[in-house]
Amino acid sequence: MPKKGKKMYPKLAFFLSILSFHILTASASDPDPVQDFCIPNTELGSIRTSRFNLETCKNPEEVSPEEFIFSGIKSPGNFSNTGLSAISVNPAVFPGLNTLGMSFVRADLKVGGINAPHFHPRATEIAYVVQGKVYSGFVDSTNKVFAKIIEQGEVMVFPRGLVHFQMNVGKSSATIFGSFNSQNPGTHRIPNVIFGSGINDELLQKAFGLTLEQILVLRRKIIFP
Amino acid sequence: MPKKGKKMYPKLAFFLSILSFHILTASASDPDPVQDFCIPNTELGSIRTSRFNLETCKNPEEVSPEEFIFSGIKSPGNFSNTGLSAISVNPAVFPGLNTLGMSFVRADLKVGGINAPHFHPRATEIAYVVQGKVYSGFVDSTNKVFAKIIEQGEVMVFPRGLVHFQMNVGKSSATIFGSFNSQNPGTHRIPNVIFGSGINDELLQKAFGLTLEQILVLRRKIIFP
Amino acid sequence: MPKKGKKMYPKLAFFLSILSFHILTASASDPDPVQDFCIPNTELGSIRTSRFNLETCKNPEEVSPEEFIFSGIKSPGNFSNTGLSAISVNPAVFPGLNTLGMSFVRADLKVGGINAPHFHPRATEIAYVVQGKVYSGFVDSTNKVFAKIIEQGEVMVFPRGLVHFQMNVGKSSATIFGSFNSQNPGTHRIPNVIFGSGINDELLQKAFGLTLEQILVLRRKIIFP
Amino acid sequence: MPKKGKKMYPKLAFFLSILSFHILTASASDPDPVQDFCIPNTELGSIRTSRFNLETCKNPEEVSPEEFIFSGIKSPGNFSNTGLSAISVNPAVFPGLNTLGMSFVRADLKVGGINAPHFHPRATEIAYVVQGKVYSGFVDSTNKVFAKIIEQGEVMVFPRGLVHFQMNVGKSSATIFGSFNSQNPGTHRIPNVIFGSGINDELLQKAFGLTLEQILVLRRKIIFP
Amino acid sequence: MPKKGKKMYPKLAFFLSILSFHILTASASDPDPVQDFCIPNTELGSIRTSRFNLETCKNPEEVSPEEFIFSGIKSPGNFSNTGLSAISVNPAVFPGLNTLGMSFVRADLKVGGINAPHFHPRATEIAYVVQGKVYSGFVDSTNKVFAKIIEQGEVMVFPRGLVHFQMNVGKSSATIFGSFNSQNPGTHRIPNVIFGSGINDELLQKAFGLTLEQILVLRRKIIFP
Amino acid sequence: MPKKGKKMYPKLAFFLSILSFHILTASASDPDPVQDFCIPNTELGSIRTSRFNLETCKNPEEVSPEEFIFSGIKSPGNFSNTGLSAISVNPAVFPGLNTLGMSFVRADLKVGGINAPHFHPRATEIAYVVQGKVYSGFVDSTNKVFAKIIEQGEVMVFPRGLVHFQMNVGKSSATIFGSFNSQNPGTHRIPNVIFGSGINDELLQKAFGLTLEQILVLRRKIIFP
Repeated sequence: MPKKGKKMYPKLAFFLSILSFHILTASASDPDPVQDFCIPNTELGSIRTSRFNLETCKNPEEVSPEEFIFSGIKSPGNFSNTGLSAISVNPAVFPGLNTLGMSFVRADLKVGGINAPHFHPRATEIAYVVQGKVYSGFVDSTNKVFAKIIEQGEVMVFPRGLVHFQMNVGKSSATIFGSFNSQNPGTHRIPNVIFGSGINDELLQKAFGLTLEQILVLRRKIIFP
Repeated sequence: MPKKGKKMYPKLAFFLSILSFHILTASASDPDPVQDFCIPNTELGSIRTSRFNLETCKNPEEVSPEEFIFSGIKSPGNFSNTGLSAISVNPAVFPGLNTLGMSFVRADLKVGGINAPHFHPRATEIAYVVQGKVYSGFVDSTNKVFAKIIEQGEVMVFPRGLVHFQMNVGKSSATIFGSFNSQNPGTHRIPNVIFGSGINDELLQKAFGLTLEQILVLRRKIIFP
Repeated sequence: MPKKGKKMYPKLAFFLSILSFHILTASASDPDPVQDFCIPNTELGSIRTSRFNLETCKNPEEVSPEEFIFSGIKSPGNFSNTGLSAISVNPAVFPGLNTLGMSFVRADLKVGGINAPHFHPRATEIAYVVQGKVYSGFVDSTNKVFAKIIEQGEVMVFPRGLVHFQMNVGKSSATIFGSFNSQNPGTHRIPNVIFGSGINDELLQKAFGLTLEQILVLRRKIIFP
Repeated sequence: MPKKGKKMYPKLAFFLSILSFHILTASASDPDPVQDFCIPNTELGSIRTSRFNLETCKNPEEVSPEEFIFSGIKSPGNFSNTGLSAISVNPAVFPGLNTLGMSFVRADLKVGGINAPHFHPRATEIAYVVQGKVYSGFVDSTNKVFAKIIEQGEVMVFPRGLVHFQMNVGKSSATIFGSFNSQNPGTHRIPNVIFGSGINDELLQKAFGLTLEQILVLRRKIIFP
Repeated sequence: MPKKGKKMYPKLAFFLSILSFHILTASASDPDPVQDFCIPNTELGSIRTSRFNLETCKNPEEVSPEEFIFSGIKSPGNFSNTGLSAISVNPAVFPGLNTLGMSFVRADLKVGGINAPHFHPRATEIAYVVQGKVYSGFVDSTNKVFAKIIEQGEVMVFPRGLVHFQMNVGKSSATIFGSFNSQNPGTHRIPNVIFGSGINDELLQKAFGLTLEQILVLRRKIIFP
Repeated sequence: MPKKGKKMYPKLAFFLSILSFHILTASASDPDPVQDFCIPNTELGSIRTSRFNLETCKNPEEVSPEEFIFSGIKSPGNFSNTGLSAISVNPAVFPGLNTLGMSFVRADLKVGGINAPHFHPRATEIAYVVQGKVYSGFVDSTNKVFAKIIEQGEVMVFPRGLVHFQMNVGKSSATIFGSFNSQNPGTHRIPNVIFGSGINDELLQKAFGLTLEQILVLRRKIIFP
């Protein structure tokens, strides 16, 4: 019997940790919440695993004001090889957002840096330029580009699901505060989705009119930048 | 016949202008749009009236990048007697937002200025402090207050429908960039809704335990600040 | 090993009871259900705690007709000091409503009694006067009041999110049957939200043009009526 | 020119009247409204036709409290041959409901009268028994019936899309106040849909195991009751 | 202690299996998902019971392409006594559909076979004729029938919630591929809902103008075909 | 006066035709409809212009069964240079779909033909292979590819917003019937969005690690295939 117990415990822990992943999914839905808010409870350490986080609601009486405040975007994060630093803030890092239907991002661009073409399948984005001068635009369903240089204090809106991009064309670094109308907007970065994902080479050659060699070069640059 | 025409034209114009108000309503709905965007067409001047604005979609080919960019919140607007300047940006002033499910606001507070308790019935708000030091909070359904001082670069979230408020507790003016997950969040300012609206005096006396004189004083201050 | 088991059990029970709170949240969402109904299962007593209720769906075969019928509003409940008795009926007391997107209330008002200004952030209300004569109204976004006396057999509608109120102006007690298009409409009662919640005094003074003494008097009346 | 005008006017009137039908459709959508309310404007008589009603929003300043109050269900309407009187109240008869996501009905049943099996494709129904004793029930997806006699002051809920029915089993007439979470719930009455609609006879014979004669008898009774 | 453990395990297993039913409900909601997909995890066998299936999300890294492909409708299933074979494909049999808001069906009709009048409360259906000649139609809210014979390569749409039906009027068997905009559209088959469910006989007699004997005959044919 | 009339007429016609475009937008929304269906009325020819189509609802009594049946995908359409023929069927070509939340497509692929990587921002797709052998796949948010060869009678699901693609790997042409849970899913074809749209060259060079010459070659191939 004790032996059986021994075996069962890890299974249950495993079960519960997977369950928790699922539950996060269930509660993270963007439809209207039916309560004021749901701060995930993260104190249930003994049954969490390294990969999944448990996300049940805290008792509202135990929630503090700090849980609705985020202080982690006062400065930029690490920069990528294209000169971009993007700190995405969603319920995974700021639990106070859970079930409220919004999330946000701080993006910084070095001089000449770019935010490669990408789209958010689940949200419109409002981009507010905190500082700098940014060539900024999107492409609509008819493949028409809407792009222009925007400056400090200006706001550009990127409609949901449309491919958009940015490039710092000023003489100093640029900072953008973007907000989304989904707590998990999703980000699909075109170069990575297409050339960094392992889509069949023949199909890519035909789709873009490229040779196999060109595809391989592109792939190498994207996977090992 | 021409006479009949004479009479009919104004009627039609009247009809169409009212119609336009309604159509804005219909198209301004926050549910998922079924097209990329809908920039309202504002060139149909001859049939507009002073009160209603015509809001049909522009042909996408005639839409320019500028229509998705807003430059009107680079500096604060006029300040109220409580030390608040709030520039609300929705499709009425920034047509590019139309049908995209988001809007935003720039709020500035003088030293000691307040943003009186209010709520947005149709949206959660993400408030990003551009500069300054702001006591900021909201009240949940159990009448518990969640409030704290937040500073430049910090973000606070106000869940949809909950009463919230702000006060500049720093030594210089403060600026906040707020964004909403509705193109028309609505703003109900409690002092005005309750004491500035003409609710029956007897009912207010009983609700707040105030005398008729106190009610009248409150009302006067709010209506003629 | 058995010792470890001993320790683990309470933890699991605790975990599961908290989990249940969260799950209620997840399943109680007002969006379209994907099954006919979900009667919460309340027989899992051994893992419930005093604070959280377990709310999983019953097997439909074990659901009885009685679970879709509510008999608890045949007579009024206790009256408050403003002469109001309100029995709110939501899935917590009538599990049959769970996931169906509606709830209801029976409100009774003594002669001269009031239902203080309040709003429901998540629902429109249809108020049907079962008996009596009730001054009834709401305030729109422009602070305009829409109020009138309604009588037995009449119906008034309060749009979602707008502040509304009622006062018995007849010579006998009044009864209202209200229904909502959310299973958890939420109720924010203005006097309590503003003066009974602990919002910073200085902010309240500035917002309402009141002295500190007046604020304190108001607060005392609302917290200790 | 005047001749051309002559021809054009009627066309425009025709166009606009049809347009109005469509616009009602557009604005009558149950998703969250983006304004407080939309009272249809019915004063534009010259361009209305007998069949279509123009339904644009009134200017809120011109809306009166009476428009949110309905007084037409103080007494029952005409009774059908099954002993039912049902007064459905939706924006067509009570414009104040427009865009608010709710509607209601007053149903009266003579002694022994029935409300034949029917379903509302777009709404859950909350049925409150104002007076009388009513056998009341619904059928779920597994064809299980949930039915019971309910009395004055009791409430039964009929989940969206499920077939339900009622029969007065008391000794006096019964009155029910039902409310719906859609402004246009729709009502599909099974006897009429199946035998009163002209579905192919052979198909009906096979579906119900009836002879052609039986089908014809059923049809006659339903179409000419 | 071990004894206590012994007792507890089954309880937990029971609890978790019921829980899983509930969780499926929560995650199976048709509103917009907030992640790419959610393949239910079915490997947690030790805590599943015969009646409930555990449906947590798999870790995306462990999901294979096969899980988004369904191969079970290459040939028809078993035929009913009305000459219909219908294979409904929803997340219960094709987990890849989970949370994606769609499902589908393969229906085959023998020569002269029928698909009895039925409706799907939660979805519109697009019916594509793979082969054959099918009399196909639906009934709207005004009891008007829209029916016609459609052939291979043609598509008919059945609006959500409306009663529809099909009959093979060709000289060979017919195959239809139907798709739905809900992962759980629901199917209410009128003959079974009305005469196969146990609705009170007196009510049915009055509703359809049938004698008790006729009702009993109908019921027998439907329950024991 | 007549002169004024002369000028006004064209303006009105222009206004109304633009209006009609907008109204289509308003009514074409995918949220739940509040009526059974809305067949656009297309008989109002005199006020239509070449670019905009008038789309008001027909009176249901004048709607015929044929309007819910589509016969235009019995054979493939024209093939592109990548060997693809795609006939998209939405309310613009099949008015019966209007407001019902679904649309569909017939895609044919020549031997070796491809359907280049693309995504539908507003819908999940269910792809049913009518004939042939098709390498078929999609890329998730983590850039993982889910791809496999599927054959006649098999179904693959492409989750909303994810990039997907197809290639005929069989020895004869292939036919696919795809259905969507939006009446206007939108199609963004990556090669065209990125290289056929006029995004700034420098930005593209940095995003893909390509030289200006390579970008220009790619662009030429896509714009003049």
